[in-house]
Amino acid sequence: MNTEDLKSRLVAGERRALARAITLVESGRADHRAQALDLLEALPKDRQAVRIALSGTPGVGKSTFIESFGSMLTERGLRVAVLAIDPSSARTGGSILGDKTRMDRLARDPNAFIRPSPSQSHLGGVGRRTREAVSLCEAAGFDVVLIETVGVGQSETVAAQLSDVFVLLLAPAGGDELQGVKRGIMEMADLILVNKADGDLKPVAMRTCADYAGALRLLRKRPQDPQDYPQAMMVSALDQSGLETAWDAMQTLVAWRRSEGHWDHARAAQARYWLAEDVRQGLLAPLDSPEGRRLLDEMGARVAAAQTTPTAAAQLVLAQLHGSAT
Amino acid sequence: MNTEDLKSRLVAGERRALARAITLVESGRADHRAQALDLLEALPKDRQAVRIALSGTPGVGKSTFIESFGSMLTERGLRVAVLAIDPSSARTGGSILGDKTRMDRLARDPNAFIRPSPSQSHLGGVGRRTREAVSLCEAAGFDVVLIETVGVGQSETVAAQLSDVFVLLLAPAGGDELQGVKRGIMEMADLILVNKADGDLKPVAMRTCADYAGALRLLRKRPQDPQDYPQAMMVSALDQSGLETAWDAMQTLVAWRRSEGHWDHARAAQARYWLAEDVRQGLLAPLDSPEGRRLLDEMGARVAAAQTTPTAAAQLVLAQLHGSAT
Repeated sequence: MNTEDLKSRLVAGERRALARAITLVESGRADHRAQALDLLEALPKDRQAVRIALSGTPGVGKSTFIESFGSMLTERGLRVAVLAIDPSSARTGGSILGDKTRMDRLARDPNAFIRPSPSQSHLGGVGRRTREAVSLCEAAGFDVVLIETVGVGQSETVAAQLSDVFVLLLAPAGGDELQGVKRGIMEMADLILVNKADGDLKPVAMRTCADYAGALRLLRKRPQDPQDYPQAMMVSALDQSGLETAWDAMQTLVAWRRSEGHWDHARAAQARYWLAEDVRQGLLAPLDSPEGRRLLDEMGARVAAAQTTPTAAAQLVLAQLHGSAT
Repeated sequence: MNTEDLKSRLVAGERRALARAITLVESGRADHRAQALDLLEALPKDRQAVRIALSGTPGVGKSTFIESFGSMLTERGLRVAVLAIDPSSARTGGSILGDKTRMDRLARDPNAFIRPSPSQSHLGGVGRRTREAVSLCEAAGFDVVLIETVGVGQSETVAAQLSDVFVLLLAPAGGDELQGVKRGIMEMADLILVNKADGDLKPVAMRTCADYAGALRLLRKRPQDPQDYPQAMMVSALDQSGLETAWDAMQTLVAWRRSEGHWDHARAAQARYWLAEDVRQGLLAPLDSPEGRRLLDEMGARVAAAQTTPTAAAQLVLAQLHGSAT
């Protein structure tokens, strides 16, 4: 399929075209990359989904939440795409099926699109690939893009720079575990959802929710927040309770940010961030090349043996990488 | 003075030659840089000082400690150099005098050398400059190099990669403040010294010391530590008590690490670290150039206005910086 065809079918909302386009932007092959660049530049720029980052440690029930929350959204007539950031490359082909099975109902929903996390590629960072996949989902007319992160520091930063709303999903837990959430991640949250607020866990969930609401009030006020945000609330993916309230809270937040100019401001700042990040990655790319690794190994052995200084060795490596004296 | 003369006088231990050599490695001028590289390569590689990183937040009494500790060392016949890592560039010319005044006694000691923190230079990072200054102090025959850091995260990482022994200086404080020391910094410490263990503060200092000793025992055992390390102990820079015990503890640690191979291993790993870091900085240098800043501003405005994608804009910036299509 040529780029023009792929674009037309993508813009028409065909899920298979979207899947194919994402595979293209994830590819490390030079010809694929060139085609991906053409496609990205040709996309309409006037479609915006609500991009929701969903962070939470393993075991908190993220998949079940996405299944319930996503289904609630499609029942309201919205089209929902689910993407994952997985910097660990720990997931393998097998878990792709696993992901789809875990989100069985959503995976069969014609208004949903689920894309498992990409395997690690040598070219480009996880940020760029996911960012480009988000753009493709928006161009394909999805209303909501859920970006799932694995709950380790760096991937939250990436998710925050890719999203309009940052949701932190937490399990009910005793007060001590409140300390376990890193302050930096708390500060990113627009909404904290305490999951599993059902059955025996409900009283614990209520206490946990109150604890986090208290913790949120202690954080510095951010300009992009309306009154009473960030919020903490309870949900149950199992009982499917609280999901609509959570979505309402997100919509209220989004509407306020749009009307106050924070939405456009944040998206512009994110675009600048990714430009700088892509340039950095591009400049550092020679370090990942076979030549770069060989040079670092070779000169590394010499500096380790104190045969030369890091300063002089670095000059030599840079001169070789640049193909001229530095 | 030519490089050969400077080297001879430096190796003979002349403090004025050392000061001049440090000014040379800190200079951003290309001809100075070339001369600095020649000098660094020509230095003898067989002189090793004990490099001590001294970390602690402002107000903990670092200057007074260095004055007392340094004087105790010179009284034992050792030559002591004091360098500072100051990534903030907040200090100005005025504080150079301030530093020397604060360490009045040590500054007049013929066996001591005090170098205030360099002002920010556009070329090279704080790490490289301080690292090269440490090498110059070693070549000038100093036995101990004290590297003072300002107590903010990044400078501790730099200090740890520049030192053989990492000392964390703390003030006596209530149990709550123990939380204020970041876990990452605790994990770097070889020795925690609770300062101001004198007068009314002595009981608090004892409790603080016991608290930190307890906290250190909870950390994972590191291969480079002998039995009972890392340690926490009390000192008083005012009463000049505990200083010799602290120095004995450092010497015991150093002797063990030397005999077990950890010293050489750590220095080799540090050399590799700085090689990689210098290469990274060199590759990223175009971002700091006027051309790089102009390109990022220009393309930043275009991506912020959604006229192009970060991906495409980054390609253009990289092509311009490399002077060819990427």
